[in-house]
Amino acid sequence: MNKVIVGVIGAGRIGRLHVDNLQKLPSLEVKAVSEAYLNEELKLWAESQGIGLLTTDTEIILQDPEIMAVFICTPTDTHAELIIRAARAGKHIFCEKPVSLSLEKTMEALRVVGEEGVLLQVGFNRRMDPNFRRLKQLVEEGELGAPHVVKITSRDPQPPSEAYIRSSGGMFMDMTIHDFDMARYLAGSEVVEVYARGANLIDPVFGRNGDIDTAVVTLSFQNGVIAVIDNSRQAVYGYDQRVEVFGSLGSACADNCRPTTVELSTAAGITRDKPHHFFLERYSQAYIDEVVSFSAAIQLGETVICGGNDGMQAERIAKAAKESLETGLPVQLPLQTEVEAC
Amino acid sequence: MNKVIVGVIGAGRIGRLHVDNLQKLPSLEVKAVSEAYLNEELKLWAESQGIGLLTTDTEIILQDPEIMAVFICTPTDTHAELIIRAARAGKHIFCEKPVSLSLEKTMEALRVVGEEGVLLQVGFNRRMDPNFRRLKQLVEEGELGAPHVVKITSRDPQPPSEAYIRSSGGMFMDMTIHDFDMARYLAGSEVVEVYARGANLIDPVFGRNGDIDTAVVTLSFQNGVIAVIDNSRQAVYGYDQRVEVFGSLGSACADNCRPTTVELSTAAGITRDKPHHFFLERYSQAYIDEVVSFSAAIQLGETVICGGNDGMQAERIAKAAKESLETGLPVQLPLQTEVEAC
Amino acid sequence: MNKVIVGVIGAGRIGRLHVDNLQKLPSLEVKAVSEAYLNEELKLWAESQGIGLLTTDTEIILQDPEIMAVFICTPTDTHAELIIRAARAGKHIFCEKPVSLSLEKTMEALRVVGEEGVLLQVGFNRRMDPNFRRLKQLVEEGELGAPHVVKITSRDPQPPSEAYIRSSGGMFMDMTIHDFDMARYLAGSEVVEVYARGANLIDPVFGRNGDIDTAVVTLSFQNGVIAVIDNSRQAVYGYDQRVEVFGSLGSACADNCRPTTVELSTAAGITRDKPHHFFLERYSQAYIDEVVSFSAAIQLGETVICGGNDGMQAERIAKAAKESLETGLPVQLPLQTEVEAC
Amino acid sequence: MNKVIVGVIGAGRIGRLHVDNLQKLPSLEVKAVSEAYLNEELKLWAESQGIGLLTTDTEIILQDPEIMAVFICTPTDTHAELIIRAARAGKHIFCEKPVSLSLEKTMEALRVVGEEGVLLQVGFNRRMDPNFRRLKQLVEEGELGAPHVVKITSRDPQPPSEAYIRSSGGMFMDMTIHDFDMARYLAGSEVVEVYARGANLIDPVFGRNGDIDTAVVTLSFQNGVIAVIDNSRQAVYGYDQRVEVFGSLGSACADNCRPTTVELSTAAGITRDKPHHFFLERYSQAYIDEVVSFSAAIQLGETVICGGNDGMQAERIAKAAKESLETGLPVQLPLQTEVEAC
Repeated sequence: MNKVIVGVIGAGRIGRLHVDNLQKLPSLEVKAVSEAYLNEELKLWAESQGIGLLTTDTEIILQDPEIMAVFICTPTDTHAELIIRAARAGKHIFCEKPVSLSLEKTMEALRVVGEEGVLLQVGFNRRMDPNFRRLKQLVEEGELGAPHVVKITSRDPQPPSEAYIRSSGGMFMDMTIHDFDMARYLAGSEVVEVYARGANLIDPVFGRNGDIDTAVVTLSFQNGVIAVIDNSRQAVYGYDQRVEVFGSLGSACADNCRPTTVELSTAAGITRDKPHHFFLERYSQAYIDEVVSFSAAIQLGETVICGGNDGMQAERIAKAAKESLETGLPVQLPLQTEVEAC
Repeated sequence: MNKVIVGVIGAGRIGRLHVDNLQKLPSLEVKAVSEAYLNEELKLWAESQGIGLLTTDTEIILQDPEIMAVFICTPTDTHAELIIRAARAGKHIFCEKPVSLSLEKTMEALRVVGEEGVLLQVGFNRRMDPNFRRLKQLVEEGELGAPHVVKITSRDPQPPSEAYIRSSGGMFMDMTIHDFDMARYLAGSEVVEVYARGANLIDPVFGRNGDIDTAVVTLSFQNGVIAVIDNSRQAVYGYDQRVEVFGSLGSACADNCRPTTVELSTAAGITRDKPHHFFLERYSQAYIDEVVSFSAAIQLGETVICGGNDGMQAERIAKAAKESLETGLPVQLPLQTEVEAC
Repeated sequence: MNKVIVGVIGAGRIGRLHVDNLQKLPSLEVKAVSEAYLNEELKLWAESQGIGLLTTDTEIILQDPEIMAVFICTPTDTHAELIIRAARAGKHIFCEKPVSLSLEKTMEALRVVGEEGVLLQVGFNRRMDPNFRRLKQLVEEGELGAPHVVKITSRDPQPPSEAYIRSSGGMFMDMTIHDFDMARYLAGSEVVEVYARGANLIDPVFGRNGDIDTAVVTLSFQNGVIAVIDNSRQAVYGYDQRVEVFGSLGSACADNCRPTTVELSTAAGITRDKPHHFFLERYSQAYIDEVVSFSAAIQLGETVICGGNDGMQAERIAKAAKESLETGLPVQLPLQTEVEAC
Repeated sequence: MNKVIVGVIGAGRIGRLHVDNLQKLPSLEVKAVSEAYLNEELKLWAESQGIGLLTTDTEIILQDPEIMAVFICTPTDTHAELIIRAARAGKHIFCEKPVSLSLEKTMEALRVVGEEGVLLQVGFNRRMDPNFRRLKQLVEEGELGAPHVVKITSRDPQPPSEAYIRSSGGMFMDMTIHDFDMARYLAGSEVVEVYARGANLIDPVFGRNGDIDTAVVTLSFQNGVIAVIDNSRQAVYGYDQRVEVFGSLGSACADNCRPTTVELSTAAGITRDKPHHFFLERYSQAYIDEVVSFSAAIQLGETVICGGNDGMQAERIAKAAKESLETGLPVQLPLQTEVEAC
């Protein structure tokens, strides 16, 4: 099969991560990278990765007929517009989450994607984590029977910078959105009600910026599943990412991953490794597998593992969670058929 | 120290369990047992346990001046009245949970207990489980810093009988009440809001009786702690009893207990023991330790580990959870100082 | 069934442990305890346990026609003679391990037991540990197929006193003897060769007394099983007692037992409980179950779980291990049929 | 730093594995591959990997002045001669284990390597396994105090082919040799005595070829450490690779690695993943890390993590183990200073 020639838009942390992975894969090739803020370090990096073209002009990528797909790795507020431009240029699109901070913009972007008939994959990388894939497989194969309860523990090791907090869209849109997608993925249904409790317990910087750092969110699904997510911006012992699905025939738990299996026993106690430090370590395989899956979808003309509608649904839940937090009341979500289809 | 001479009121499953334990302890002695429905089996059992008196007349126990304390192990709807009678007779009281299904009756009973100056211990045995005590100790010693989130998984292995369901007061009052108490115990604060989601997913017998079998309850505490409890009436793999406390300095999880530590590895997979079957096995040590603690409180004139107010608070939460389930809305609980003190 | 009336000879740590357990069991009753060195503490203890007779004269116990069985809990060098006297007096016998430090004395004692037709149970309590029983059950039910390798880790938390070391008979006879019995029990065969390596790595007190504190022993069994035992007199993290059986259809491992299941996660690391401190905690249930089993054998006329031959075989292996350590060569053990039958 | 240009000699399973890894690493580049038996499949593979030259003539690689290092991945009986030829050609050498089946040949090869001053790394890849590296680190940092006992469990999932068995040099030279190296690595000392017990319990094919399939080997080290290794050619539950180091200040255990952390709880039991299937999966990271380490040693002029002497010492132990098995006696190994230095 022919390689999928791609352009990467945005060379921040996540853009460079994707390039590093893409260049090791036999099915893809990065032809060009665009980045608004070029510097020497980036140039050296691009050279070491064998990138032919490093530019500040995204249009060069969009107009290159050889490039079949683009990776949108820019700040969130540019996603929707870039999706529209890329779709109009006939490129398949891999876009980091969230699609946008505005449901209207997201729906507009999805509409254009639909019109142009290109593929759009949203970067909910955790769907490809081997542990959570195994949970999904157990659900789908019926090993757990009818699912009743989904429990997600999702805690970051430390808070982001204040600059990041300000432009993040808030904890639900920035952090919990991964968990909303995971809950939908595992429940196999759509959310009909959201109830969120949150607090600012860790650092006043969150409160100062109208945000929270601790939350418990209950999701009620159309098929009766109840999901519960607890989040913290600071788990001092490391990145805590556990998921459990309980059903009529059993339960399955995905525990944290650790650097080694070594257990140390001394007079001071019995100790094992902390979980992997953060998402780059914990989800390193998932970041690879999601782009392998994306390129296979392009090559085989299949659907992506996580599309525009998945992105939009997670955003709807995040928005409802924010409303619930503000009103103190559960928020109903109209059934999917009642909103404009994407 | 002198032995604490006790009478046991009610010789059902839990009453006989207490007698079995009491008779092995050096600090207590069961002088008499009363039970409304006597049969041959009970007589043989009482004999084997060396019980001097087995009677249908509870008054004999209450009037015996040698008996210092009574264990109330009768059906829930008799608890409050028996507490009042025992308190008036000057007996210390160990009463199984809940104190009653009516907050008014509970408060009346507590009022009389207060007037008579006797001790009342409510049978929230899980407080004495070695695993949960260790959690409590970690919280109290500050190892976890300020507590932020308490998570309780509490699932029974199989549903009770329809007769039991009918008189149980509903899942929140019968089953979750233990978890409400555990959440209060670990959070070290009082609940100010309850939000409950529930469903009838396991067996229509629950729905037929106006009850649920699956629930997720969120509790908000005055000190900012958020607790979340998930319950099921049927975990096919056994009695699932796990608790986790997450705080500013760390997290502590109490896992299930199992009959053995053996792990079996075959071509079919890697298998370990299911959790202990049900509460009699899982909490066997807690059932002993709670009565040891009760007798020590009597002998030393100390307060009990779990008193009448604890019983009432858990009932208030259960009642609010039921209201939340029915209305679909969070229910506020007035601060403790606003209700009549006990 | 009638209670088994017993006398206990020797009221040191292990004798008192047995009395404490026996007095809680419905099937046995301790009528008398003899102890060479009586003091006030012992008298108070006997009173608290409801022991009718505390004496320095063992003969009173042996001559009491009501006493059906004796527990021999005296120092090892008195075991063989007491077994002979008790057997001649027609008492069933529970004797702590080892039967003696001399194979000749052990065989003489077993001969008398055989002549008198009384039961003799040797206190290899670990056979009744729930974890190791489960291993045995898996072997017997064929879950592991043909057993190939047995691995035993057996490490004490700290060295005994020098006085104890002097009279212990050496590490193999005092400590490893339990592991030799466990290996025989799980292999289901007899040892044909012993190879022992040992060293004095922990404390010079062992070397001063001609003993070792660290050992690795390989046992070859008639049925092809190879067992390997590693011992240490000092595991600073607690009592390390693990056993593994590997066979043609799988493997089963019994891990250590711990006071609680709590795992603590902090910035300093992920910590769980150390193993139970020592044998009294780890094998508390086994100490109960072995005497229940002994009383049942008496009441039902069945064979004991661990008899005189088991005691003698373990002593033969211990003796061979010592010889191997001294000569640096493997030591062959003649097949069981070639030694005088017991 | 300049890339290390390498040639790979032998394109069997392990040769291709190395090429796959080398081509993904920025510090190395495979210029040529030689293989005696070329076929279409190999040509396609070489093309897909971007290998410029695929030849049957090893001499082309050895004479290429641009090639700085060779990987010897041919059958064992060619290793020594190829090492000599490569060393004479001035190439640094990475050679798969064992160096040879004859100690004389190995020593001759090491002599030439020493004369030519090239680097020789022997492929004991497990030294780079993250779990075992952590054990080594704990030993070196003194966390375990003085090491006393090393325990290695090393079991293959299924037996190799009869053809493989015939040319393998026997289980000790083919399989246990990895464990001998690991024991030396962790004990930090040299072996002075070897005692081996082995049996043919799994498949008669081993016995037919004068080999065994089950073994327990005890190694005594000059510094007092005792190591014990148990091996099986067939662990039906997967590749069982566990190592434990016990010392004066504690113990550290490296457990098996598994594809996921998921635990499944059903009415049938509590199940988790089997260990990784075999060495390609379990040691995938180690295979990468050992070549990264090799290229760094070349680039920085440092010593390799595992050199010719390490290869020779492991072979000496394997040979002694075979002799012990045949004679039934422990075999002494003269101290390292007494053999010709390498």
